[in-house]
Amino acid sequence: MEHNSILVIGGVAAGASFAARARRLSESARITIVERGPDVSFANCGLPYHIGGEIPNRDALAVQSAASLKALLNLDVRVRTEAVAIDRANKRVEVKNLDTGQSEFLSYDKLMLAPGASPLRPPLPGIEDSRIFTLRNLQDMDRIIAATETGMRAVVIGAGFIGLEMAEQLYRKGLSVQLVELQKQVIPPLDAPMAALVESELRHHEIGLHLGDGIARFESEANHVRCHLSSGACLDADIVVLSIGVKPDSELAKAAGLELGARGHIVVDPFQRTSDPDIYAAGDAVETIDRVIDSKTAVPMGGPANRQGRVAADHIFMPEKARPYPGSVGTGIVRAFEAVVGITGWSEKRLAAAGLPYETVSVNDSHHASYYPGARPMTLKIVWEPTSGRLLGAQVSGYEGIDKRLDVLSTAIVAQMTVEDLCHLELAYAPPFGSAKDVINLAGFAACNRRDGLVVHTSDLPSDPQVQVVDVRGKALSEAFPVPGKAINIPFLSLRASLDTLDRSRPVVTVCAFGKMSYFAARVLSQNGFDVASFSGGIKANIDPRTPAKLPSP
Amino acid sequence: MEHNSILVIGGVAAGASFAARARRLSESARITIVERGPDVSFANCGLPYHIGGEIPNRDALAVQSAASLKALLNLDVRVRTEAVAIDRANKRVEVKNLDTGQSEFLSYDKLMLAPGASPLRPPLPGIEDSRIFTLRNLQDMDRIIAATETGMRAVVIGAGFIGLEMAEQLYRKGLSVQLVELQKQVIPPLDAPMAALVESELRHHEIGLHLGDGIARFESEANHVRCHLSSGACLDADIVVLSIGVKPDSELAKAAGLELGARGHIVVDPFQRTSDPDIYAAGDAVETIDRVIDSKTAVPMGGPANRQGRVAADHIFMPEKARPYPGSVGTGIVRAFEAVVGITGWSEKRLAAAGLPYETVSVNDSHHASYYPGARPMTLKIVWEPTSGRLLGAQVSGYEGIDKRLDVLSTAIVAQMTVEDLCHLELAYAPPFGSAKDVINLAGFAACNRRDGLVVHTSDLPSDPQVQVVDVRGKALSEAFPVPGKAINIPFLSLRASLDTLDRSRPVVTVCAFGKMSYFAARVLSQNGFDVASFSGGIKANIDPRTPAKLPSP
Repeated sequence: MEHNSILVIGGVAAGASFAARARRLSESARITIVERGPDVSFANCGLPYHIGGEIPNRDALAVQSAASLKALLNLDVRVRTEAVAIDRANKRVEVKNLDTGQSEFLSYDKLMLAPGASPLRPPLPGIEDSRIFTLRNLQDMDRIIAATETGMRAVVIGAGFIGLEMAEQLYRKGLSVQLVELQKQVIPPLDAPMAALVESELRHHEIGLHLGDGIARFESEANHVRCHLSSGACLDADIVVLSIGVKPDSELAKAAGLELGARGHIVVDPFQRTSDPDIYAAGDAVETIDRVIDSKTAVPMGGPANRQGRVAADHIFMPEKARPYPGSVGTGIVRAFEAVVGITGWSEKRLAAAGLPYETVSVNDSHHASYYPGARPMTLKIVWEPTSGRLLGAQVSGYEGIDKRLDVLSTAIVAQMTVEDLCHLELAYAPPFGSAKDVINLAGFAACNRRDGLVVHTSDLPSDPQVQVVDVRGKALSEAFPVPGKAINIPFLSLRASLDTLDRSRPVVTVCAFGKMSYFAARVLSQNGFDVASFSGGIKANIDPRTPAKLPSP
Repeated sequence: MEHNSILVIGGVAAGASFAARARRLSESARITIVERGPDVSFANCGLPYHIGGEIPNRDALAVQSAASLKALLNLDVRVRTEAVAIDRANKRVEVKNLDTGQSEFLSYDKLMLAPGASPLRPPLPGIEDSRIFTLRNLQDMDRIIAATETGMRAVVIGAGFIGLEMAEQLYRKGLSVQLVELQKQVIPPLDAPMAALVESELRHHEIGLHLGDGIARFESEANHVRCHLSSGACLDADIVVLSIGVKPDSELAKAAGLELGARGHIVVDPFQRTSDPDIYAAGDAVETIDRVIDSKTAVPMGGPANRQGRVAADHIFMPEKARPYPGSVGTGIVRAFEAVVGITGWSEKRLAAAGLPYETVSVNDSHHASYYPGARPMTLKIVWEPTSGRLLGAQVSGYEGIDKRLDVLSTAIVAQMTVEDLCHLELAYAPPFGSAKDVINLAGFAACNRRDGLVVHTSDLPSDPQVQVVDVRGKALSEAFPVPGKAINIPFLSLRASLDTLDRSRPVVTVCAFGKMSYFAARVLSQNGFDVASFSGGIKANIDPRTPAKLPSP
């Protein structure tokens, strides 16, 4: 199918992928990219890492240029050019050269909108101070680099993925860093307990954490910016980085009368077509389908953006063969120093907030065979649909192999696998890489045990004094790191011989370090007539997760 | 359900897992493990790594002992005790204490056979020389350690997973190592090109490779063993390690009249029950279902063994809730020095040998974002069913992140995913962990391009002089690492302007380093009327895969 004139607004992830795929499908089309900034196709996910020097070479981030896209793909790329208005009736876009100020109209047969999303910059008092930055492009990055030096004080506002990366990279550059987050935890998409490892890692590096606190206003002083938090606390900063989220750049689409979603994203069909069949949209500015639970979502990430661009090009140039974009799962990962944490699908709190039924377990294990040197602990939490057992989400935290488990579980979610299916995934096992029973298999086992009624889990240590809390760890561990509140220490190895010391008429909660021995103990007690629940995931308090350690023996 | 007396023959992976699960389900059962060797529940996959010192602590390999299994699980473990005969009529097993020589009968309500598999030791002339070892248990490992020292000459026969691990570990210990393999490649389950990286890595470490050659006979000399190969070559060795495969230890089952499969494995139903409903079997000695293509298979690996043991225990103690063992995919991974390679599902050659239809592509990419330091190349090959697009197998080779891709692809195979599904897997992306388009997505794209007729792939460089072989790499690369045979160098960036230098009446094969630019070129040529195929996977010759390198620009 011939579409001679293809116009693309926005030349980073979605726009560049769209244009490349379009060229692959049509050598004859005229393909023009209009990009407001001076760069196209740069690695925006790498920006924080250059600030801290972890990616030393700035050129590495400039994946393509206007010239290389011309040479490689015969694309006409116009940088520093802003799309001002879409004239749908005449199928043309008014564009303005930001250097010369001159405007002109570019006509299109098919138009792709890939404007992306901008960092939020709320209208707080003092926000206009030039020492308050956001990070979207190479120029923002350059400005932050120019404004920072060793010994300075930085305040990062927002502890999501980008906020964490910024905090670490500014620390790497020698700044002292304070991190402010409105939620009572870092990485708000996670369930709070799964964020604890990263919080401990940040504190270990003396990043100041101000959780459950927001920015109220800024005050410009001669030598610094004073950040006034909602709590009344004050933080003085030589530089402030705002990373509190993004909003879709959908003004142009809105002005053109294209349909927008509830949160301002461009509405598209499964082939990325907007409400105007000659206009497509992809990337951070669009709304998409949630692959886990049928609903609308927006996932401002590079992976979906690239793949949506490709889908749109296929639909234009080979509509009979094009496959729909299936929606997004929402897979995210972040490293904070040595700690790594990620999520795929839905969290427990998101399910709870939506009033949806779910069940959950957490398990702990080594990232590879515990007998092979360097095994490090990891925690995996899964949530599933109670009736079907279908996996709805997973969160993983630890040090090594986190991305691997997320990727397997994201694939399992897409495949509509159940927790039963997780039991028998056949994952690669040699001592440096895994275990005969991977933590994913263990999560499947634990979930099935729960579904089969073999064990009752509890996520809370009981406060009811009627409940007998039985700590089944060894005596030394139990004394060194006591269970909060009142607990009876019966090491697991003595349990079978000590049943008569417990009151069979009162409920029991078993507790251990990682949730494994407490499960074993719950099985022993349950079969001996006790009403018992196992404290899910263990109290972990006896382990310093920062040192490679074999999980303790009972 | 009460089964008071459970007898387990074999106390390593399958037997120990079975017994542990059985105890979890029944506190009241009497559970006895009979084990011929002195150890139970040891980490047999770790044995090679202790020989080379990579796992320094021998105790790490002894996961449990008879005493610890008694304390932890209330199991009655009898080591150095051999099961001599099964008396099915009377539901008892004759066992012999190997230290005292005394025999007795142990009765059972349910019997679990987990005898494992023994290393093959063919009746070759000279095989009885005490310097010829196999590796199955801690004692074998101890003997090999005692027999080896720096400077010795080792010959390892069989270059499968264990042979490779042995070769590396003996090298680590300072021996010079020769590796002999009957097939013309290492790791016979792989397609030959996917084994090339490991072969190059072995040669880099001066491991002598004798491929396509077998052992004919041994000759015992005073100071060494002379290994005569089928080719006539002779290798002198201070120590020989045989790692040419295993055979199921199914003699006891056979003598008891239990049904065996074509290759001597114990036949079981999906709940691991043998042809006698009171006798179960699990682990390396059993036959199972292939999850990819309905057929019989045997996967002598720790993961399946452990999970089969669990299934059997569930079936005995909670038959109404037990879930069948779904069969095995056959996922294997091995590291050879820095190189890592693995397979899941079926290979191309296995499909071809079975006369089954398939299609395949290979793609190359970095293991994480190429702009983030340390990105290393990897190759992914997938095979799928032509009609449905269903993924049948995958092989991955490279340095980092190999296990991750294998695990995702193993999960995708189990989920019956198609190559279309691979396009939209949403894998974790932050610069240290992945790419916006992971190599798995790229493989999906390449497969769909092929299915959609956008590109024709060829796995062979044509010898027909009528075919124009067009090398689209840059001039310098093309000259430094020429394409074998006759080729025309037209760098991709000049291609669109050079179309008239090619003969439109003759077919074209495009070639590049990694198969990406050759695909781009094939699209350009195809749309300009050429009959063109792209050389799949590229010739790779210009890259030293051992140095971290950005993939070259066009």
